[in-house]
Amino acid sequence: ITKEVAKLLEMKAQLGGDENKHKFVLKTPKGTRDYSPKQMAIRERVFDTIITCFKRHGAEVIDTPVFELKETLTGKYGEDSKLIYDLKDQGGELLSLRYDLTVPFARYLAMNKITNIKRYHIAKVYRRDNPAMTRGRYREFYQCDFDIAGQFDPMIPDAECLKIVHEILSNLQLGDFLIKVNDRRILDGMFAVCGVPDSKFRTICSSVDKLDKMPWEEVRSEMVGEKALSPEAADHIGEYVQLHGGLDLIERLLQDPKLSQNKLAKEGLGDLKLLFEYLALFGIAEKISFDLSLARGLDYYTGVIFEAVLLQPENDHMEEPVGVGSVAGGGRYDGLVGMFDPKGRKVPCVGVSIGIERIFSILEQRVEASQEKIRTTETQVLVASAQKKLLEERLKLVSELWDAGIKEEMFCCEGGEALAQVAQSSGGCPIPGGIPLVAIVGEQELKDGVVKLRDVATREEV
Amino acid sequence: ITKEVAKLLEMKAQLGGDENKHKFVLKTPKGTRDYSPKQMAIRERVFDTIITCFKRHGAEVIDTPVFELKETLTGKYGEDSKLIYDLKDQGGELLSLRYDLTVPFARYLAMNKITNIKRYHIAKVYRRDNPAMTRGRYREFYQCDFDIAGQFDPMIPDAECLKIVHEILSNLQLGDFLIKVNDRRILDGMFAVCGVPDSKFRTICSSVDKLDKMPWEEVRSEMVGEKALSPEAADHIGEYVQLHGGLDLIERLLQDPKLSQNKLAKEGLGDLKLLFEYLALFGIAEKISFDLSLARGLDYYTGVIFEAVLLQPENDHMEEPVGVGSVAGGGRYDGLVGMFDPKGRKVPCVGVSIGIERIFSILEQRVEASQEKIRTTETQVLVASAQKKLLEERLKLVSELWDAGIKEEMFCCEGGEALAQVAQSSGGCPIPGGIPLVAIVGEQELKDGVVKLRDVATREEV
Repeated sequence: ITKEVAKLLEMKAQLGGDENKHKFVLKTPKGTRDYSPKQMAIRERVFDTIITCFKRHGAEVIDTPVFELKETLTGKYGEDSKLIYDLKDQGGELLSLRYDLTVPFARYLAMNKITNIKRYHIAKVYRRDNPAMTRGRYREFYQCDFDIAGQFDPMIPDAECLKIVHEILSNLQLGDFLIKVNDRRILDGMFAVCGVPDSKFRTICSSVDKLDKMPWEEVRSEMVGEKALSPEAADHIGEYVQLHGGLDLIERLLQDPKLSQNKLAKEGLGDLKLLFEYLALFGIAEKISFDLSLARGLDYYTGVIFEAVLLQPENDHMEEPVGVGSVAGGGRYDGLVGMFDPKGRKVPCVGVSIGIERIFSILEQRVEASQEKIRTTETQVLVASAQKKLLEERLKLVSELWDAGIKEEMFCCEGGEALAQVAQSSGGCPIPGGIPLVAIVGEQELKDGVVKLRDVATREEV
Repeated sequence: ITKEVAKLLEMKAQLGGDENKHKFVLKTPKGTRDYSPKQMAIRERVFDTIITCFKRHGAEVIDTPVFELKETLTGKYGEDSKLIYDLKDQGGELLSLRYDLTVPFARYLAMNKITNIKRYHIAKVYRRDNPAMTRGRYREFYQCDFDIAGQFDPMIPDAECLKIVHEILSNLQLGDFLIKVNDRRILDGMFAVCGVPDSKFRTICSSVDKLDKMPWEEVRSEMVGEKALSPEAADHIGEYVQLHGGLDLIERLLQDPKLSQNKLAKEGLGDLKLLFEYLALFGIAEKISFDLSLARGLDYYTGVIFEAVLLQPENDHMEEPVGVGSVAGGGRYDGLVGMFDPKGRKVPCVGVSIGIERIFSILEQRVEASQEKIRTTETQVLVASAQKKLLEERLKLVSELWDAGIKEEMFCCEGGEALAQVAQSSGGCPIPGGIPLVAIVGEQELKDGVVKLRDVATREEV
């Protein structure tokens, strides 16, 4: 069969020889983009805020390869596995581009037998999704992950993750936000008491996950139609998933005649109660909403799950603020490391991922709108002269400045001379990139053994 | 044919179902590695030195996707093209992982019609080479590139690139080094006057490129044997490629009866002369050696080429210091952007790439040998208490410290209490990761409304 396939493919390549001759298209691959210096400046500001927060919380940093053995990713992402990029089989191992940073982290822990670590990891991940780039969705995008692995008092690391989301979204000044919280055990308990058969838990959970994009009616008809759930069970779920609130709702559900009889749900509710107490101690409970409609797509979550959404400023006639999309999410995954450990040893983990691309989009639009000037270099001095023949003198000065650690640029082409003349005249000076100082090398200055330094903004000279 | 192939492949997958069942291997792909927190700490130090230098020279930063359209990379790397990683054809575009940062940069310039920029780019590149990981060679590795694109006075940007290599290698304190310089035009002129047929320039150049790994005799026999060059031509080349020196050698070759008659060689020698004058002005000429054996592998160079090697400390009986391998390289590529531009418009470029993995290996070994303790977190305070029940009080303190921007960690498991006790006792304190201060929350302190702060090194308490 292998030979036959090779033969056929070769034939196809030959047949297709002519039709493949097409004009070369100058572009980046679908769903990807370059970052210009201006975009990089914004990106680095955001990373700086995030990394500062992660370090404040005592995290170490690791890095892993951009691709993993295909097997490492197999069976971790449920329905989304079809979005994984595979590398071509060029002999040797079968490889795939990483889909997130969580599975490589779990693989790293198992491989190095690490049972206790607080780490962050900022890197690109890859999903063959249908990109909606204007809304900040790409096939190649950054994730900023912070995770805590190890045995701790219940809900302490979980509360810390929520605190981190709160700190980062506050520091980035993105406007009002809300962090929705739920627990996979509560969801599973809810499905059980609503009469969903065990075998349908995962697929019904996927349907619930769509509630942030679809109205309940559509989700219900997917459950009853495509997924053959009984209408009664669906309606029962429909009652639960519209609930959201705080500690009061948790207390109420702990008294719920059905849920309180379910072991998993009870455990989940008990833990959430503890979590909310800690969030109150951290002073961030008001931004957190226990929301029974939150499901999260990924397979590996086992406990608390959460997702942060930005809220649009209230419009005239809207009663409730509308979410403009998730900018962070995460949860507890106590089973994932055990999937990699040869002896199945578990390492409890909880983590958060900051979805940076949407944040970039918002900040880019804001910079655009405000017409704020973003500097893309840190150059402090521009060395220029009005005479071309002074090149040697300029090079000496330039070298001296570099060696002294001064950030410096030199204009050494014809434009540079014109510029220096402009700088010497009293007119406005078009210094590139907002360089604040110009050092001018001229015949007279050389004779006097000095350099003229001009402040671009004030036009003062010394 | 497509249908037939799909059918056969499906059959094969079914047949192969059993043989594919093998034990899962817990590893990273061949030729790749994870970076542990300790390695990341070293890596970030190195990056910091390099980025500081790039910024000092007024560079902006850009980023490009990890993969490019396969066509973008086609025809740029000569014999090395076989090392490119392709992605699997999953429908849509044919993609390859980037092989270096230079070709994506040229694509970026052409795509955005940029004719003038000084930029740096630090990112991973991919080569399906046979990895020699102990010597710092990987299939996934970082490159740190600095390039200057645009029309400038001759040799000014070229001299700046060499200045940058000099600054970075000096700042990293890697020991003595040498930067070899040559020019593709001199090589081509040399081949011409030695009687190499035009059609063999590139392949003979590849042979010369091996001179840093093989003795001349082997390279000669490759030229004469495999590549069917006349023995006279080979011997003639053999005389030239052993030459190395400074301005004196350039002057000598400008008088060489044969080379001086070759237009290309004369151009190259003239430019090198200018370059060496600038290097003298920059005060770095003594580390630069004009070396006629330097060829560089890549196809796209058109002018000056260079490569920096670290020199081992002189041994007892060795007369000359021995290079331990290239840590930086680069050159001028005036034709590459034009290959992407629909109208073939050229943008002259020169750039340098710092080969960071070998530098990491050296610094890692040095840290290992010196037993220097590398901190992997920046945590300033550890909050601990001797009593488990004080959790709430600890959480409040922790939250207060975070909100004040203090880098803080809390011990909230049983180990934490033991640790706090140790910290309170007079014995040595095993504070993780070198945290300098411990804040102790105790019953008595709470009554007094204070927190006890302990300096781990001096054991002083306030």
